[in-house]
Amino acid sequence: MAVLVNASDQHDIWMRQLQNALPDEEFRAWPDVGTPADIQYVLAWNHPIDQLHLYENLKAVLLTGAGFDHIDLDAYPPVPVVRLVDPAMSMDIALYVLSWVIHFQRDFDRIRVDQAKRRWREPMSMVFPEDMTVGVFGRGAIGNVVLKLCQSHRFNTLGWSRSSHDRSLIQFMADCDVVVNLVPKSAHTVGIIGQAELTALDDGVIINVGRGVTIDGAALLGALNGRLRAAVLDVFETEPLPPDSPLWDHPRVTVTPHVAGRTDGRRSSLVVADSLKKLLAGTLPASTIPGTAGLV
Amino acid sequence: MAVLVNASDQHDIWMRQLQNALPDEEFRAWPDVGTPADIQYVLAWNHPIDQLHLYENLKAVLLTGAGFDHIDLDAYPPVPVVRLVDPAMSMDIALYVLSWVIHFQRDFDRIRVDQAKRRWREPMSMVFPEDMTVGVFGRGAIGNVVLKLCQSHRFNTLGWSRSSHDRSLIQFMADCDVVVNLVPKSAHTVGIIGQAELTALDDGVIINVGRGVTIDGAALLGALNGRLRAAVLDVFETEPLPPDSPLWDHPRVTVTPHVAGRTDGRRSSLVVADSLKKLLAGTLPASTIPGTAGLV
Repeated sequence: MAVLVNASDQHDIWMRQLQNALPDEEFRAWPDVGTPADIQYVLAWNHPIDQLHLYENLKAVLLTGAGFDHIDLDAYPPVPVVRLVDPAMSMDIALYVLSWVIHFQRDFDRIRVDQAKRRWREPMSMVFPEDMTVGVFGRGAIGNVVLKLCQSHRFNTLGWSRSSHDRSLIQFMADCDVVVNLVPKSAHTVGIIGQAELTALDDGVIINVGRGVTIDGAALLGALNGRLRAAVLDVFETEPLPPDSPLWDHPRVTVTPHVAGRTDGRRSSLVVADSLKKLLAGTLPASTIPGTAGLV
Repeated sequence: MAVLVNASDQHDIWMRQLQNALPDEEFRAWPDVGTPADIQYVLAWNHPIDQLHLYENLKAVLLTGAGFDHIDLDAYPPVPVVRLVDPAMSMDIALYVLSWVIHFQRDFDRIRVDQAKRRWREPMSMVFPEDMTVGVFGRGAIGNVVLKLCQSHRFNTLGWSRSSHDRSLIQFMADCDVVVNLVPKSAHTVGIIGQAELTALDDGVIINVGRGVTIDGAALLGALNGRLRAAVLDVFETEPLPPDSPLWDHPRVTVTPHVAGRTDGRRSSLVVADSLKKLLAGTLPASTIPGTAGLV
């Protein structure tokens, strides 16, 4: 038996750390599969599905990046698929968010406009963290890390998820100065942030580090040409963002190329190794995707 | 006897909080001095010196902002002058710094250049906090808060001060990716960051939240036109920064109008009230400026 590793970035780090954590297992580096029947576990972000079906003794797939909406689970072999829930990656996203939250709290966007006009404006606004409310839409593992990090720096925070909330989504948007979108993509969430929600956000800021399709694109452009102060967008309906997108040169938009949460192989490999150990010991990791779990 | 309050910003907050903390004292709001002989304490950032000499029963001056290099202590009446050492203001500066540190760690400067060219570049560099060294030059109360905040988010940190260091200043600059300048202005520190130091910093970033004159202006421009990646400047030799300064439109420079550390009257007033209580009880606050202390 063998473990197939298909970790595109930091490949050497992954192989070394995995072998180190599990010295008795044989790890094979994709695309050197060897005999397909040997492969019992696949570690990958987006492994070719036709390949997966060749591994007749496959016992589980372990994802090496967060999120799994890029995977067609229905087409997968009937084995447990384990998500990557990596605290280091959650913190990577949270620090990305914190940097932008402070950016707007401290008026760096307005100061930049002033700089272009050689204009020294003093005193600027006296907005302190406790004067600003950061809302997190989508309260999974990552959302909770973002909330806690902002709280620890004295920002007011609000959380909202479809399954747990104390006010309407519209009211939530109205109560926030900055909304961090981390809602996962699903049939229920496509376009969930639409014109009414963005109107309620008023002159606030939206930071999208979840999935592009959860924000209605036309409504976002309308809000940006209206009262919305700014949008920091790391994810898009189509990635890479097409060259003709009006978002590229909108003065209120920051485009980052889907980099908010990076998988650091040095740490993620340890998280995945831990899940692999559990599977080898015959137990399912807590991060196994529901629906794939009953199929062991 | 009375306490004269000359707190230009958030005046109402200062008066209310001081009166609340010390209900038995009489606070007078500048410029309504009343009888000058009544004034025993002055709370101010930059009170007119000729006025101070009119208060014949003056016992102490309490500063309502950080730093005291704007004050000509030799021309002051011979009374203790108490600095403001406000943890909230230190944290204000530290968060300003953290936001910019993450900005460069996450390549937001390069991504912004890409955005202007409608260029989606992925993957970007995989620089994690532990891959970046943030150096703090000047290890006073504020410098230590900056160091601790960066450490708590897993950045490597180095501190350097004239009185305490384990390597040369040149070596310190060479060992840092980002240098945060917090050195106070004095006869020893004018131009202390010069051409050799900036050359040693190489393609790093300098963040100046200390005093403008501590960086040699010509050397800084030379470095910016050479290898220096960026400068975030909150303080300048002349403030406001003159309209003809070449810093305004240098593509690698961010100019902010001396806003990194703001005095939040809600909290600073409590710190100053505490110092005032100590003085009223006959003891000198620890933040009394040395040299003024022996004159009680």
